[in-house]
Amino acid sequence: MSEPRIYMDWNATAPLLTEAREAFLSALDLFGNPSSVHGEGRAVRAMVESARRDVAKLCGAQSASVTFTSGATEAANMVLTPDFRMGRTPLKIGKLYVSAIEHPAIREGGRFAREDVCEIAVTPAGVVDCVALEELLAAHDRQTGLPMVAVMLANNETGIVQPIAEVAAIVRAHGGMLVVDAVQAAGRLRLSVNDLGADFLIVSSHKIGGPKGAGALIARGEIMMPSPLIRGGGQEKGHRSGTENAPALAGFAAAARAAASNVEERMAAIAAMRDRLEAEMQSSAPDVVIHGRDVLRIGNTSFFSLPGLKAETGQIAFDLEGVALSAGSACSSGKVGQSHVLTAMGYDPRQGGLRISIGEATTQAEIERCAAVFAKVAARRRSTGQAA
Amino acid sequence: MSEPRIYMDWNATAPLLTEAREAFLSALDLFGNPSSVHGEGRAVRAMVESARRDVAKLCGAQSASVTFTSGATEAANMVLTPDFRMGRTPLKIGKLYVSAIEHPAIREGGRFAREDVCEIAVTPAGVVDCVALEELLAAHDRQTGLPMVAVMLANNETGIVQPIAEVAAIVRAHGGMLVVDAVQAAGRLRLSVNDLGADFLIVSSHKIGGPKGAGALIARGEIMMPSPLIRGGGQEKGHRSGTENAPALAGFAAAARAAASNVEERMAAIAAMRDRLEAEMQSSAPDVVIHGRDVLRIGNTSFFSLPGLKAETGQIAFDLEGVALSAGSACSSGKVGQSHVLTAMGYDPRQGGLRISIGEATTQAEIERCAAVFAKVAARRRSTGQAA
Repeated sequence: MSEPRIYMDWNATAPLLTEAREAFLSALDLFGNPSSVHGEGRAVRAMVESARRDVAKLCGAQSASVTFTSGATEAANMVLTPDFRMGRTPLKIGKLYVSAIEHPAIREGGRFAREDVCEIAVTPAGVVDCVALEELLAAHDRQTGLPMVAVMLANNETGIVQPIAEVAAIVRAHGGMLVVDAVQAAGRLRLSVNDLGADFLIVSSHKIGGPKGAGALIARGEIMMPSPLIRGGGQEKGHRSGTENAPALAGFAAAARAAASNVEERMAAIAAMRDRLEAEMQSSAPDVVIHGRDVLRIGNTSFFSLPGLKAETGQIAFDLEGVALSAGSACSSGKVGQSHVLTAMGYDPRQGGLRISIGEATTQAEIERCAAVFAKVAARRRSTGQAA
Repeated sequence: MSEPRIYMDWNATAPLLTEAREAFLSALDLFGNPSSVHGEGRAVRAMVESARRDVAKLCGAQSASVTFTSGATEAANMVLTPDFRMGRTPLKIGKLYVSAIEHPAIREGGRFAREDVCEIAVTPAGVVDCVALEELLAAHDRQTGLPMVAVMLANNETGIVQPIAEVAAIVRAHGGMLVVDAVQAAGRLRLSVNDLGADFLIVSSHKIGGPKGAGALIARGEIMMPSPLIRGGGQEKGHRSGTENAPALAGFAAAARAAASNVEERMAAIAAMRDRLEAEMQSSAPDVVIHGRDVLRIGNTSFFSLPGLKAETGQIAFDLEGVALSAGSACSSGKVGQSHVLTAMGYDPRQGGLRISIGEATTQAEIERCAAVFAKVAARRRSTGQAA
């Protein structure tokens, strides 16, 4: 097959944007350690601080509230800890409440003991159950410390947008702390740490078209911060030690600028392609189940199950036809596990789902070819899948 | 001044090697998440595993024993923990013993409580005091768990090589665990985790001419491992979650191949330049104190004090003359603190020291210009410094 491959796994990692690549490459030529006092060091420091402003802007935050990390997983592990400081005063978090559809980087609970991590149910529609959250927080024992709640803004598998404003109101009413994983929402929804009512946001560079190796924890203020996860030279105001990855941060900044611009227009165009693909999928296989189709989703994601087709088999079939998509999320090195998101939504997870996630570079032609591959895979399933 | 600047701060960060840059750039074009099952993901996975072999080779280790991290500071925080596992059995470490001249990434003690971190004295010559170590370990209370000892192979400020074989024998005799920070030694001394007798080595990409954003923890075996610092998707066999920074790892691998080749010849050439510079320094300022000159040092580093010249003033003077060097080590964003290394060596730290660290790209002409700048700075000190 000589046709070029079609990449439809943007939620796993997005291709590097041209502007991010350029910023990244020109930063490679500036050597120097940003903590060094000499001219070379100061030039790199200026670049890091400029990147901080861009990432802050993406999140509607002050740049002083941005702590750079090696990625979103590290940022999650940094903020998910029972040990906080309010200025110089220790602040204890008693329990962590995570939605049942969080990414494993959140679900694993960071530095909390396993027994201090509680799950918040989601509805069959794939939306966090605010009644369940309210009940959990009402039962929270404040003697153990504050409650911390982690709910993502957009789910990585389904794309379903979570009711963060409502969650924030509940958390606030119970004097808790709210952490919002905005990894998949960044660049796809307008972000504002204040408007969301979150205490912390987490974003990732490579999911928005920046280079791998950079992420950030964005705080609403500067006063309340987690105890450092990585100690040492005291970089990032002591919150995260280790030489800043300045070229990656320059690329991250360029991607953040792109992600912050024209969000609605960009996403409308992408959602139109996604919707067209889903319409064609529905027409070639009327029994396809498109998860979350009836609720608010980010515009680039389609998560579906085809009765009689196992997700693993489906993924390989698409791959052989030149389409890269994902069975659930891409983590834990190549293992295709059962989707905890489908399980949480009460859908039989044994069959699994397939995720198509697209982006700015996706073309109408690719959508058409993908629809054709889908029809082929779905048809083959009807002839052989049901016998299996 | 139109003369090009001279970069003599390789121990803070080394310029990106041409081969590392090339490997890095070509890896940028391979997109895909290494944990994805599709073709794109598998290509990136292959690149990550190939990088693992190169980094293992640099350290004389099996590739299965290499865990990639975002850098050496993270690797240090990962391994410095009271909670280990021997296969599936928990293994407790009672106390951490660190030499007084360790890098802050080690000195801060990672996940140990402050009261469980003990300092091992160094001799005035800047070498870890093995008698002191022996006494500390003899007094170690095994009821609290095993002792862990962290001693670096080459000091970042002085370049002094530490007697790791002797340290390892003592640690072994007391049933302890030995962590060796090989960040500054990599590429400058031949490395072998087995020959050193270390249980863990730590290396960094950007210190050997690779890109920033990559480092590794290298274990002697595979059985005894620290509890993960960063949890989530389960990458790196569960030891370190987060999407692998594949392009940075490809660059790291290229730098590791370069660092492993012709170590002795390369370093002899560099040491000859360093020695010539020191001879010229001595001749223009006979009162210069070159720290560690009488003991074994890595060949690229010269750490000196000039009576009557404060390190900060000296650094700025060199910078204005176009020479980038360092006052002590480069960490904690621009602060020039007192050198804990000089303090540990019993030298008055108020005056401080200046570090020149060079590398493969350093030229004889740069050495001569640096020597001339040194003479100028030293002479100026004599006229004004002593009056101050």
